Amino acid sequence: MTDPSATAAGSPDVVALERALREALDAKTKPPGSLGRLEALAVALGLAQGTIAPVAGPARIVVFAADHGVADEGVSAYPSDVTAQMVRNFVGGGAAVSVLGRHAGAELEVVDVGVAADLSALEGIVHDNVAPGTANLRVTAAMTRAQLDAALASGRRAVTRAVEAGVRTLALGEMGIANTTSAAVLTGLLCGGSAAVVTGRGTGVGEAALATKRAVVGEALTRLAGIADDPLECLREAGGLEIAALAGAMLEAPAHGIVIVVDGYIVTAAALVACRLRPETRRQLVFAHRSAETGHALALDTLEAEPLLDLDLRLGEGSGAVLALPLLGAACAVLAGMSTFADAGVSGSR
Amino acid sequence: MTDPSATAAGSPDVVALERALREALDAKTKPPGSLGRLEALAVALGLAQGTIAPVAGPARIVVFAADHGVADEGVSAYPSDVTAQMVRNFVGGGAAVSVLGRHAGAELEVVDVGVAADLSALEGIVHDNVAPGTANLRVTAAMTRAQLDAALASGRRAVTRAVEAGVRTLALGEMGIANTTSAAVLTGLLCGGSAAVVTGRGTGVGEAALATKRAVVGEALTRLAGIADDPLECLREAGGLEIAALAGAMLEAPAHGIVIVVDGYIVTAAALVACRLRPETRRQLVFAHRSAETGHALALDTLEAEPLLDLDLRLGEGSGAVLALPLLGAACAVLAGMSTFADAGVSGSR
Repeated sequence: MTDPSATAAGSPDVVALERALREALDAKTKPPGSLGRLEALAVALGLAQGTIAPVAGPARIVVFAADHGVADEGVSAYPSDVTAQMVRNFVGGGAAVSVLGRHAGAELEVVDVGVAADLSALEGIVHDNVAPGTANLRVTAAMTRAQLDAALASGRRAVTRAVEAGVRTLALGEMGIANTTSAAVLTGLLCGGSAAVVTGRGTGVGEAALATKRAVVGEALTRLAGIADDPLECLREAGGLEIAALAGAMLEAPAHGIVIVVDGYIVTAAALVACRLRPETRRQLVFAHRSAETGHALALDTLEAEPLLDLDLRLGEGSGAVLALPLLGAACAVLAGMSTFADAGVSGSR
Repeated sequence: MTDPSATAAGSPDVVALERALREALDAKTKPPGSLGRLEALAVALGLAQGTIAPVAGPARIVVFAADHGVADEGVSAYPSDVTAQMVRNFVGGGAAVSVLGRHAGAELEVVDVGVAADLSALEGIVHDNVAPGTANLRVTAAMTRAQLDAALASGRRAVTRAVEAGVRTLALGEMGIANTTSAAVLTGLLCGGSAAVVTGRGTGVGEAALATKRAVVGEALTRLAGIADDPLECLREAGGLEIAALAGAMLEAPAHGIVIVVDGYIVTAAALVACRLRPETRRQLVFAHRSAETGHALALDTLEAEPLLDLDLRLGEGSGAVLALPLLGAACAVLAGMSTFADAGVSGSR
C-alpha cells in the first residue's frame, strides 16, 4: 500500500522511484525506449503502486448503473428501460463487458447506484440504489447533496471491497441511458468546451435527437457557468449517480495504491471531477482508450492523458477498459521478467 | 480449412460471409458498430478463416533470425553479434518477446534461417540456416536465387508445422541486426518512397549512422529502380533471409486459413512482397501496430492496413504482434459469447 503523504507528485520519493523504474527498463535487453508507451505504462503503474515491481492483477471490473431524468428529453437512441435490462444482461453474462471480462480473466461487479427499475430482488449485483434515477438536469439539479454524498460513498466502498479481495487493478465502467448528456455538461463546465464540441452521438442518436441533446447541453452550460470552479457542485447539477460513484471510487484509490483503468467519455468525466478535487488522484489513473465521442479528446487533453487504445469504441460498460487490461499485465511482465544486458550476455549499443 | 479458390476476394461466397458476420454483430446487445474496430477485426478474422465463428487460439509466435551483410556499413546501433546473442536470449526466456509471449499464453518458436554465428548446437530452436547472413546489399545482391528459395521454404514449413499443431494464429517476428535497412529498400521499391521517407533510426542510430544508412538505402533504390515491378527480385536484392522466410510464411497462410499477425516495419516489408506476389494473402493478415519507424506508414497505406495498436514500439522480435493477440481473442469472444437483443430481452434503438 502506498502512503500518499510520502509520495506526493514531485516529491523526492516520487522522483527517485520514477528514476529507478526508468533505469530498470533501460537495463533490459532491448534498445532504450524501444517498447515505447509500454515502458511509460510500466513507469505509471510503478508510481501508482509506489513500487519498482508493479503487479497488474488480479483485476476487477466495476460497472456502476443508474438512470437519468434527462432521458425524458429524448437525448438517447434507447429508452431508459434499457439500463435495467442491461444490468440483467451483465449478470446473465451476455453483455460485451461480461464476455470481454471473462476473456481477460477479470471478475465483474455490477453496482445498482440508481437504476429507475426495482432491482432489489436481482441476485449477483451490489444494491446501493440511492434514488430511482436523477432529476432532469434540464429543469433542476440532477441530485440533492445527500444523494451525491451517498453515490460518492458507494464508489468508495467498491474500492475498499476490491482491496479486501486482493484486487490490484480496477477497470471502471458505467451503464446509464442518457449519461453522455451528463458527461458532456461536466466536460463543458470543467474543460471550458462549447456544447458543439462536447456533445456527440452517444450510442448513436440521429440528427434530430443530436440537435435536442446539444440544446439541452448548451442550456445547462449557460445555466451552470457560475459554478464551473466547484467540481462537486458541477457533478451534483449535471449528474449522474453512476458518475458520482465513479468519482468516489477514484478518490479512494490513492490511499490504497490501487490502479484505476478509465474507460471512455463518461468515466473520463468522473476523472475530471476527481482530479480537480484531489490532484493526487491522477497518478492512480490509466486511460484505456480514445472514444469516438467528440468531447473525449478535450477531456483527455485537460487531464494530460494519452490513452492506450484508439479503436473507435463508443459502447461504454467498461468495455474499453477491459480491452486495455492485457497491456497493463504486459508492462508489468516486462519489468519483472526481462533479462538485463548483463544477465543475458548481450552487447549494448555502440 | 479454407478453400481459397472458393473464397477469392469479392467472390459471392466472401460477400455472403462478410454480410453474415456483420449481421451477427449487429444482433448483439450493443448499439450497432459501437465496438468500432473490434467489430472490423471480428469480420476480418471470420474472412481469414472462412467461417462465421472464428477462433483466435491457439496462437504461436514465430521469430525468424538472420544476419545482414549490410551491417558492415555501420547502419545499426548494435554489432551483428547481437543477432545470435538475442536468439540465445529468446530461448533463455528473457527477451521481450519471450516475456510477452508467456504473458499472452502463446508459445514461441525461433527459427535460425541465416544467423552468422554457428547455432547448430543450440537446443530449442529450428535449424534452417540457409547461409551465415546475406551478402552486403550495398555491393551485390543480398541473396542468390537458391538462398531466396530456401528461405521462402523455411517460412512455408513454419506454417505447416503450426497447422499440424492445431495453431490458428501465427504472430510473426524477426531478429536481424541491420534489417531495417533491408525493409527500407523493399518499402522504397515496392511503395515508391524516397530514401528520406523510408529510412528511420531502427533500434536507435545516431545522426552519423542515420546519414550513412540513408545513403546506402538511396544508392540501392537507384540501382534497383528497374526491378521494382518484380517483388521476388526486390527481395533477393534487398534481403534478408528472415524477411524472405516471413514472406514464405504469409504465402502459405491462405491454403490453411491461418491468421497471420504482422508485427512492425520489417514484417510489413515481407507483407508487401507476399501481397504483391499473391493478393489473396492480404486477407490472412492482421496488422498489429503502427511502428515509430518512419517508413511504416507508407507501407501500411500501400497495403490499406490500419493497425490495431499505436504504442511507439520500435523493438521488433514480434513484440507488437504479441501485444495485439488479446484483441484477436476478444473479437472472437464478442462473436461467440454475446447475447442478442432477442435472447436477452433488451429493447433495441428507437
